[in-house]
Amino acid sequence: MFPTTVIKLIPFIEAIGIIAFCVSGFIRAQQHKFDPIGVFIIGFVTAFGGGTLRDIMLDRRPFFWVEHEAYIIALFVFSLIAGKTLHFMRRVFSLKSMLVADALGLSLFTITSTAVALDAGMPYFVASMYGVMGATFGGVIRDVLCNEKPLLLIDSEPYATCAFAGAWLYLILMYLNVQAILSLALGSALVFVLRMASIKLKWRVPSGF
Amino acid sequence: MFPTTVIKLIPFIEAIGIIAFCVSGFIRAQQHKFDPIGVFIIGFVTAFGGGTLRDIMLDRRPFFWVEHEAYIIALFVFSLIAGKTLHFMRRVFSLKSMLVADALGLSLFTITSTAVALDAGMPYFVASMYGVMGATFGGVIRDVLCNEKPLLLIDSEPYATCAFAGAWLYLILMYLNVQAILSLALGSALVFVLRMASIKLKWRVPSGF
Amino acid sequence: MFPTTVIKLIPFIEAIGIIAFCVSGFIRAQQHKFDPIGVFIIGFVTAFGGGTLRDIMLDRRPFFWVEHEAYIIALFVFSLIAGKTLHFMRRVFSLKSMLVADALGLSLFTITSTAVALDAGMPYFVASMYGVMGATFGGVIRDVLCNEKPLLLIDSEPYATCAFAGAWLYLILMYLNVQAILSLALGSALVFVLRMASIKLKWRVPSGF
Repeated sequence: MFPTTVIKLIPFIEAIGIIAFCVSGFIRAQQHKFDPIGVFIIGFVTAFGGGTLRDIMLDRRPFFWVEHEAYIIALFVFSLIAGKTLHFMRRVFSLKSMLVADALGLSLFTITSTAVALDAGMPYFVASMYGVMGATFGGVIRDVLCNEKPLLLIDSEPYATCAFAGAWLYLILMYLNVQAILSLALGSALVFVLRMASIKLKWRVPSGF
Repeated sequence: MFPTTVIKLIPFIEAIGIIAFCVSGFIRAQQHKFDPIGVFIIGFVTAFGGGTLRDIMLDRRPFFWVEHEAYIIALFVFSLIAGKTLHFMRRVFSLKSMLVADALGLSLFTITSTAVALDAGMPYFVASMYGVMGATFGGVIRDVLCNEKPLLLIDSEPYATCAFAGAWLYLILMYLNVQAILSLALGSALVFVLRMASIKLKWRVPSGF
Repeated sequence: MFPTTVIKLIPFIEAIGIIAFCVSGFIRAQQHKFDPIGVFIIGFVTAFGGGTLRDIMLDRRPFFWVEHEAYIIALFVFSLIAGKTLHFMRRVFSLKSMLVADALGLSLFTITSTAVALDAGMPYFVASMYGVMGATFGGVIRDVLCNEKPLLLIDSEPYATCAFAGAWLYLILMYLNVQAILSLALGSALVFVLRMASIKLKWRVPSGF
């Protein structure tokens, strides 16, 4: 029973994560006064850039967004009315709920990316890197296109670190032959809990320098 | 008769477009005081970067410029004498004719990229995105390498928008089983006319914000 | 006898080159106050980014660093103690020996990348471009992530030019049916000698403008 519920939840969490990532792209686009084409491109790379780079590197096709065209058509429409979209998101959702949505996306995309890389025959450490990359490099491409230093590399927030920890929990559970869906649920849960705790408790990654 | 003439024209329009894109790269390289290596790289990514990214994402090989090595050898030679090349281009061609050449490149590359994506089995909306990307992302990579915000994302000129409209005309004509070469000609013509009109009439994309 | 010695040397030169490239990434990360995640990513792209981009474009798998996971695990550990790593490197190795190490990496990676591209059926000029790209584009991606203009494009040092010359020597020797390992040794040696001479004699590439 547990697995079935979890499996049914996945598309919902996925949609929540994609929306959160797109909104973070829209906010950045607004700060930089992007035009509607720019808004669409930034929303797109923030939400799908990490997974697309992962699939290019693993030589996997078709891309997620090619099979789920509805997502990018919706993104296109919301880009044309980005001001209204952002206004609506801000009125209905608090900053806190947006952070929760982003953390849900981070959690799910980390573990699905790790699973995809493991499936493709990658060794464990490489799979954990793909997990982190799939979930976080959309934001890196977004920042590069905005001509800023990528937040992921400089802000000392344990964002990638939370993803890394969850990826390893997933890999260890898989190594121990725990059921795939349970491993996915526990790995994602660890990413989510660590991310929420790191925001609440203002954790910082100690500088290596 | 019509198709034959059009087909014969394609390599010429292609060459004109490539030259125009390279020159736009050279001008940027001059503004940023790039060395000859930099000039070659910027010319290359401006002209071939969009199509190369498209082919990587569609998993197509060989790349256009691998099969047409003459283009990049010529580009290499002209990069070494970039100052003279630019001086010559500016003396012989007016700014207006350079804008026309760029619009020709945009028109042709948009529709060929859309056709390539459709051929690769992409759904319609995705194919139109590939069309716009193939024709315009060389400029985005150019701007990223120049450490500038990509013009495509911020300048509110309907550059990608013209490409998008033409891509859709092509897709609709193909859907209606119109002859491929006629669809290509009409789609390209629409991009070209819209682009020229948008320059002449100083159209701007309304901000979504 | 000669070939055997050279073949045995390759993994050592490779390791020296990778370490030198990583350290150059670490130095940049320190200047930009990157956090440990950022240090790891910058070290990684500097050392492996050029080869990875080359393999993506040539559609080759697995990547070098997937088959040599030990390198990236070591890089990961050293990233966590990047300050200590840099301190140690600076105390034990002079700036001069670091430049020599970097030149060794440039030499080897240029010729191996050229060889890989030739193997993949690329024509000669394209193969020489892949040679230069494989050895130098890690630095370009590093600079883009640091939000700086890529040094390779602006500094007028004959870095890519040395690589280009060595790639062509290798290609000519291969065309003349010289033994592969001898061609590799001579091509690499030319890159190394030119690079060292260019530093010593402060050569500059004449501007094309």
